[in-house]
Amino acid sequence: MPDQKLQIIPLGGLGEFGMNSLALRYGDDIILIDAGMMFPEEELPGVDIVTPDFAYLEENRAHFRALILTHGHEDHIGAVPFLLSQMNVPVYGTAFTLALVERRLEEHDLLEQSKLVRVAAGDRIEIGPFQVEFIHVTHSIVSAVALAITTPLGTIIHSGDFKVDPTPTDNVLFDLHSLADYGRRGVLVLLSDSTNSDRPGYTESERDVRPRLEDIIRNADRRVVITCFSSSVHRLQQILDLSAECGRKVAFLGRSMVSTTEIAHAHGLLDIPNGILVRPQDIMDVPPRKLLAVVSGSQGEPMSALYRVAVDDHKHLSLERGDTVVFSSRIIPGNEKAIYRMINHFARRGADVIYGSMNPPLHVSGHASAEELKLLLNLVRPKYFVPIHGEYRQLAKHAMLAEHLRHTGLQETFILETGETLEFDRYGARRGARVPVGRVCIDSGSVDDVVEDFVIRDRRHLSEEGFLLPIIAIDKHTGKAEGLPEIVSRGFISEDGSDLLQEARQVVARTIASATAEERTDWGVMKEKIRTDLRRFVIKQTSRHPLIMPVILEV
Amino acid sequence: MPDQKLQIIPLGGLGEFGMNSLALRYGDDIILIDAGMMFPEEELPGVDIVTPDFAYLEENRAHFRALILTHGHEDHIGAVPFLLSQMNVPVYGTAFTLALVERRLEEHDLLEQSKLVRVAAGDRIEIGPFQVEFIHVTHSIVSAVALAITTPLGTIIHSGDFKVDPTPTDNVLFDLHSLADYGRRGVLVLLSDSTNSDRPGYTESERDVRPRLEDIIRNADRRVVITCFSSSVHRLQQILDLSAECGRKVAFLGRSMVSTTEIAHAHGLLDIPNGILVRPQDIMDVPPRKLLAVVSGSQGEPMSALYRVAVDDHKHLSLERGDTVVFSSRIIPGNEKAIYRMINHFARRGADVIYGSMNPPLHVSGHASAEELKLLLNLVRPKYFVPIHGEYRQLAKHAMLAEHLRHTGLQETFILETGETLEFDRYGARRGARVPVGRVCIDSGSVDDVVEDFVIRDRRHLSEEGFLLPIIAIDKHTGKAEGLPEIVSRGFISEDGSDLLQEARQVVARTIASATAEERTDWGVMKEKIRTDLRRFVIKQTSRHPLIMPVILEV
Repeated sequence: MPDQKLQIIPLGGLGEFGMNSLALRYGDDIILIDAGMMFPEEELPGVDIVTPDFAYLEENRAHFRALILTHGHEDHIGAVPFLLSQMNVPVYGTAFTLALVERRLEEHDLLEQSKLVRVAAGDRIEIGPFQVEFIHVTHSIVSAVALAITTPLGTIIHSGDFKVDPTPTDNVLFDLHSLADYGRRGVLVLLSDSTNSDRPGYTESERDVRPRLEDIIRNADRRVVITCFSSSVHRLQQILDLSAECGRKVAFLGRSMVSTTEIAHAHGLLDIPNGILVRPQDIMDVPPRKLLAVVSGSQGEPMSALYRVAVDDHKHLSLERGDTVVFSSRIIPGNEKAIYRMINHFARRGADVIYGSMNPPLHVSGHASAEELKLLLNLVRPKYFVPIHGEYRQLAKHAMLAEHLRHTGLQETFILETGETLEFDRYGARRGARVPVGRVCIDSGSVDDVVEDFVIRDRRHLSEEGFLLPIIAIDKHTGKAEGLPEIVSRGFISEDGSDLLQEARQVVARTIASATAEERTDWGVMKEKIRTDLRRFVIKQTSRHPLIMPVILEV
Repeated sequence: MPDQKLQIIPLGGLGEFGMNSLALRYGDDIILIDAGMMFPEEELPGVDIVTPDFAYLEENRAHFRALILTHGHEDHIGAVPFLLSQMNVPVYGTAFTLALVERRLEEHDLLEQSKLVRVAAGDRIEIGPFQVEFIHVTHSIVSAVALAITTPLGTIIHSGDFKVDPTPTDNVLFDLHSLADYGRRGVLVLLSDSTNSDRPGYTESERDVRPRLEDIIRNADRRVVITCFSSSVHRLQQILDLSAECGRKVAFLGRSMVSTTEIAHAHGLLDIPNGILVRPQDIMDVPPRKLLAVVSGSQGEPMSALYRVAVDDHKHLSLERGDTVVFSSRIIPGNEKAIYRMINHFARRGADVIYGSMNPPLHVSGHASAEELKLLLNLVRPKYFVPIHGEYRQLAKHAMLAEHLRHTGLQETFILETGETLEFDRYGARRGARVPVGRVCIDSGSVDDVVEDFVIRDRRHLSEEGFLLPIIAIDKHTGKAEGLPEIVSRGFISEDGSDLLQEARQVVARTIASATAEERTDWGVMKEKIRTDLRRFVIKQTSRHPLIMPVILEV
């Protein structure tokens, strides 16, 4: 019998939304599954992204063997550059997932030194005591896999993110058979995606969005603008197919939309009909009823291409009365107000905006609902169960969905939060010691689309670089700023830096003055513009990176 | 022919969510319909409520005749005390609406001087050139009315807030007949509720929530906690009836829940079965499977009774594993994260939390969807149409719903935003001059449940009272504060006040220390606690009311 312990060590994504990352350790060998980011909460202004704290891996650097990626969503790969900049381990993933990672690594000048190892669904690899099999699953992004990881103490199934789509648009079915085989042979522990565990029933098939999109595209008299997540390759394929059928040219707008479609096309995952694409600069030459634009920015990000179109500040696309804007996307909780503000801007342009949950749907989730989760549980029949990927409420619901398996072999469900570990030995499973975890706030420092070094926002950083709080009083109804903006600072400059602060106040005043009246009544946009301009100014003047948190007071 | 102009003057609620208030002027006579508040947006920290700026009425004080209320929701009556403290006009409303207003006036010591005039659906009153008829409508609150206001230039129909519920729980049907009569005789302009104009189909009947609530209450093994809007008297009646049928005692928890149920009961609008109520202090003596608690705080307000129960800090109710918590309420956009945080706390207590949109529903809207809005448009057949109550996107959708009436008499639809007026004379309708409008931020100053004077937060106030920004660094995973909190202030105290700031830092440190570990990881709760304690300290020490905006940094 094996005499080493097997440990499950969640470094992110359990009891919180996003930044999924989970380590497995057997004896002295550690592998990491996914290294995702999360977007900062509203309570964390002045920060671009948040990643897990990989202190545990740093402490055990000598034992850290590999990073394995399940799929290419930001909450699974977004922290890869940050991780690899500290610890250069080989990275395993499918071709499309690695292509998305490559783009990120290139931006941070890390690509050359990185070891990326392509795998395909069905492949098996060995990393120390771990034998890993990649199993195809259906999800809202292409080339997603679950993992079957066999260790001396038994097999771990990690679901990745998944739904059980019976009719995927690419006709590549969920590999139920491999999971069934593992289930028949016996699985030690199942780690499964809890994102939609509070949703009863089944998640609709990706194919279910086609009828409504077709209805809209076919019947629109003028331009159609569709926004969706740029990684939704299946969705983009359906939009391209419908555009071809309806005789519309297609333009892709937005940095992530352009680059993702290029990558997907290069990997043969997106079929772009000949001659259908139109360059952004030629959009306004296409007759309105012959144009369809796919634009990134569905979450109301103030600097996105879609927001620029909404406030009529896009270089290439200007909407007119009677154009149609379609949200083929969900609202990530916390983004409601920003998205509704953007929709108000579109409505002011006279566009007909189609959004919200409706039947037939404009968007379907990529995550399994309760009945699919039970299907996976029943196929895998694990001895132990650990719900992953979700806030506590979702983990708890998922645990309840497994209750019936008590009668057929499930010994125990463990609800773990990030940092809480589980260990196995020949006698069974039990909670282990906590490991150090945390969140690292990163200011990617992107100025003018050039991504600079990581600037890590932590206590140390705050005391070294300080912070700036520009305080702006704006009249809500006129959009006019009242007086010169105040700037409060701490730990940033000494008394004799007051000239700099005076100049900084002028920078903020200029940002406000150069915004349109419509933008000025939109706090989300103004905060982001002020932050961007002030950051550029401060870096140029001082080469320092203070935390910048604009505070807008309505007067 | 009349030679005076009729003006429609929106002071709030058009192109924004909440604070509904609209003035009508004929010649030298002005009446105001509703005086609502809105809750501050996240961008406005440190403020309790927001009301319309009534500057237009102050300037025309001599002509301001009366305030007419359509129903008792906060976004229609919340600004009444603030308005009456400035201009004491008679207030017309139904008995229940006025009872809710009385409670607010009493809190502000304004009740005695106020002139409240009770009306009932079907009544007609005359105020100068305006003849006003009150028309019963169905809505999520009882005793709601639409208004038919006849002037020398024609009739204005103001829908109030409504849905067309074919099977209301109190069997009092929407008065379609009166509206049909007005429609037949000819209506100059319809002002109609746009809240749900972007929702296709019909809104479900209030009765449709019963099956699921019954299923939950009947089958729960232990305590059931239900949260809903405290003004949802129909909902409360259904919950009381179901509790009686299932043999459960009922406790009402939360200040607004207790007071609203008392008022509704006193007015014969809520039937409370004999002996069913249990006092809060006796809750824990009731066997768990015999208890149902109705608790206010469905929007995740950090100081609400429900939040206290969630973090196990309520004086009378402590949940245990296996209890059930039901959200029979909607999520107001912007509150998602606070509500989900609260649900996570409940899940940690081991409660089964039932929430979200599902079928059959746990909650139904009180506002008309697209088909009901078209029904009202077709009944009223107005010459002009002005969509009211909603953000721009909702007003624009509502305008599109009226397009078909172009063929049957509708001459024009005007999308107005707050401050934009419309005027009518014998020749027709046209846009008029803008009037001064704005938002007034009010710190109700409630400390220890005692509501003090209004403190108005505006530019003038900011420069007089200044602001305090407590900056707290909290470790997300341990919940520990790092070092003594910083406090940044401006315009609040002179240099020699630094002792006070030092003391204030200690106050904040004590607030953090006295919170539970669970509360400390919940920023929403911590911000509100810090703000409350610091406000109490500052008022006591200085009798001043600076704006207090806690900033929590995660480290």
